[in-house]
Amino acid sequence: MPRMLAPAFDPERFRREARAVVDWIADYWQTLEPRPVRSQVAPGDVRAQLPPHAPDEPEPLAAVLADLDRVIVPGLTHWQHPAFFAYFPASASGPSILGELLAAGLGVQGMLWSTSPACTELETHVLDWLRELLGLPERFASSGMGGGVIHDSASSGLLCGLVAARERATHLQSNRHGLTQTDRPLVAYASAAAHSSFDKAARIAGLGSEWARRIAVDSRGCMDATALAAAMDADVAAGRIPCFVCATVGTTAAGAIDPVPEIAAVTARHNAWLHVDAAWAGAAALCPELRPPLVAGAEAADSWSFNPHKWLLVNFDCHALWVADRTSLVQALATRPDYLRNAATDSGGVIDYAEWQVPLGRRFRALKLWLALRMLGAEAIRGRIRAHVAWAGEFASWVAADPRFELLAPRSLSLVCFGLRAGDAASRRLLDRLNAGGTAFLTQATVGDRFALRLAVGAALTERRHVEAVWAELSRLADEAAQTA
Amino acid sequence: MPRMLAPAFDPERFRREARAVVDWIADYWQTLEPRPVRSQVAPGDVRAQLPPHAPDEPEPLAAVLADLDRVIVPGLTHWQHPAFFAYFPASASGPSILGELLAAGLGVQGMLWSTSPACTELETHVLDWLRELLGLPERFASSGMGGGVIHDSASSGLLCGLVAARERATHLQSNRHGLTQTDRPLVAYASAAAHSSFDKAARIAGLGSEWARRIAVDSRGCMDATALAAAMDADVAAGRIPCFVCATVGTTAAGAIDPVPEIAAVTARHNAWLHVDAAWAGAAALCPELRPPLVAGAEAADSWSFNPHKWLLVNFDCHALWVADRTSLVQALATRPDYLRNAATDSGGVIDYAEWQVPLGRRFRALKLWLALRMLGAEAIRGRIRAHVAWAGEFASWVAADPRFELLAPRSLSLVCFGLRAGDAASRRLLDRLNAGGTAFLTQATVGDRFALRLAVGAALTERRHVEAVWAELSRLADEAAQTA
Repeated sequence: MPRMLAPAFDPERFRREARAVVDWIADYWQTLEPRPVRSQVAPGDVRAQLPPHAPDEPEPLAAVLADLDRVIVPGLTHWQHPAFFAYFPASASGPSILGELLAAGLGVQGMLWSTSPACTELETHVLDWLRELLGLPERFASSGMGGGVIHDSASSGLLCGLVAARERATHLQSNRHGLTQTDRPLVAYASAAAHSSFDKAARIAGLGSEWARRIAVDSRGCMDATALAAAMDADVAAGRIPCFVCATVGTTAAGAIDPVPEIAAVTARHNAWLHVDAAWAGAAALCPELRPPLVAGAEAADSWSFNPHKWLLVNFDCHALWVADRTSLVQALATRPDYLRNAATDSGGVIDYAEWQVPLGRRFRALKLWLALRMLGAEAIRGRIRAHVAWAGEFASWVAADPRFELLAPRSLSLVCFGLRAGDAASRRLLDRLNAGGTAFLTQATVGDRFALRLAVGAALTERRHVEAVWAELSRLADEAAQTA
Repeated sequence: MPRMLAPAFDPERFRREARAVVDWIADYWQTLEPRPVRSQVAPGDVRAQLPPHAPDEPEPLAAVLADLDRVIVPGLTHWQHPAFFAYFPASASGPSILGELLAAGLGVQGMLWSTSPACTELETHVLDWLRELLGLPERFASSGMGGGVIHDSASSGLLCGLVAARERATHLQSNRHGLTQTDRPLVAYASAAAHSSFDKAARIAGLGSEWARRIAVDSRGCMDATALAAAMDADVAAGRIPCFVCATVGTTAAGAIDPVPEIAAVTARHNAWLHVDAAWAGAAALCPELRPPLVAGAEAADSWSFNPHKWLLVNFDCHALWVADRTSLVQALATRPDYLRNAATDSGGVIDYAEWQVPLGRRFRALKLWLALRMLGAEAIRGRIRAHVAWAGEFASWVAADPRFELLAPRSLSLVCFGLRAGDAASRRLLDRLNAGGTAFLTQATVGDRFALRLAVGAALTERRHVEAVWAELSRLADEAAQTA
């Protein structure tokens, strides 16, 4: 048996190879614009070009990079492309990529404070910074009973909020005895326009989709707080337990903002948990002039969340979740086996973030948020958000001024929902033709009962000219799309 | 409002700064050995050195790197240190770090096949490679009804397996109506030595810890299949529904391997879901001579999982989960809102990995696994695992030969559990003194009713001399620790 092994990390080799990878990435970003935004491969195309078995012997980096160019890149939809206007942006930035690289290079585990104290403390600290930048209430600061944590996604944050709510509503009995021992259904509420992760969480947590109530929305897509009150009252009258309300600040379809203060008042009457999902729109609270509707009612929320990995220039994954009282979350999720025991945990004086999330392990995600905030600076991030909002406003004005088009919802921040007056089938054709052309990529949503094209501005490389260009292309294709295919 | 913004990704700046970060990481690894393995800071030390507010104006990378050296690194426990023998290894490697860098640099989303086909297809493909390398049954290959997926952690994989099991047992009624509408408790089973994530999953999924049964283990820490059979029969007799059995291949405390074939036979009688958690030990199945006990019974498992981020030189997070029939998982977890609709999903001919996991979003984690397998080569990875097992065997022989020490469990692969014959208090003192010295880091577990020190060999930089050195240090400290403090 060998006394020495070929090193799995050879520093000099790493320096050389990592530079090649860095150059490959820089070249990729520099050559994004002429590429078709959406991948044009068919199912199976990528796999057909990959060898059927893993190699026994090492291959050089050059072979991997060649395969990236030949096999992988044509199979990508380029989320960092300047004409990516689909879904919501997943905006990366140079500093955040460096932060992810550092996290991988350090390779430490932040599951407990004791497993790498700086990993926990930087996370708590940077989320306190971010709370202040967003103008969120003091109750979410770690100096009191609250604090922030980074999850992978808004789905996971919502699930943990729901589990904490479930436990609080059952006085920790559902953790212990399970929901089968409870005759009275626990009910969760969100608007009809809330994200699908609400249903997924209700299913995973054992409430069931039947008890994940979707509350009616007004014509703009905002939850009707009166309907919420009626639903909660009816559930109580029927012997059910309202336990969780998810208010959406910026719906996926059209960016609608629920009336959180009114929802909070209703929720409070039933002592239910109020979670605010501001996954995309939350980033805009960085700008004081955009903030008021985004953080309204936050002082009554039990948890408030948004995704820096959407519009805050931090590469996926980085979901920021704040809780007003970390006790419920920790009571719901903590497990303390012997093999993780340590003096710091026993002291009760530290945060062990494994107790704030589903997984045990966690990497050092605070680094990318720290680097992005420091190296970009809050003011430049605000400038980008303001520009995106302004460009979306211009785009919406062009739509409104063109008699062939119509806005299908009020423009919300940097999101515009629109269609052709010729009808939904025409709008569908327009979207298909635009996306097939490859110069830009938009996706769709149902707004009211209409098929809407969505333009979400926010990619890191997007400039005003890209918004102008996609409008020119849409305008060019509109007449053809309006005719029967 | 600006027509142009300062770029969030400037390719030339990125090349320059990323090289500095790469050099910083290489320097970090080159200077790991003399550093104390475990961080020596006290709670609050890190935060006390950080400014109270985020900067409004950009700071240079040099300032960040200086703070990394000054504030962050002293607050880290160095998981990549060659004398890190604590918990289980979280072994990174040069190629896997490059893979993580590429994933961040590409910044694509793999939630659906259509959102970046190569992200999904490479993942499916590399997990097929890995299935073959481990000698797992064909039923887990994506060519049939099965297939593999990358999750963040074994906790998340177990939760998803449990939710799929719950849904299968209730014919999808718990998803729909929730568990409060079920009078009969759903019961999950794992050994008394199984990981704490079993209880966490049972709590999150609404079963409750009361119905997360811990089955007795034999003197080696392996589940007693007869006791499992008795427990399942008793539950059925009492009207409960056995739905999920988690067999552990390599327990956290002592590396015990449950008798999966016997457990599978019992599980099958009740049509329950069999999940195999081989989080740490599974990597050793890469070596044909170590494989048989690790994959025994896998042909009867519904899901089988291990963590390449533990012992397979892929940096966290990278948990590999295979299912024999993806239908249950997808039925349990799929949500298909309008705004994610696309032709490929509608065709039914592609994998949408968002339907195999808790979160919606997902990054391109297959890259790091692909790079590690290709650039290291399977044979070199096997060589490392064999060496770690051999060194742990030598260490165990030194322990056994020293009259002051005793082995507290049979050495399992690269894990040795041991203590001082002078008793648990002496063993505790020995561990504390060793760790305070900083030259190595071990953690503890309860084995039987004894306090055991655990030596887990597996860090990327560990050589045989580091194992010799920690034994020399333990040997030096033993007499002092054996005396009353």
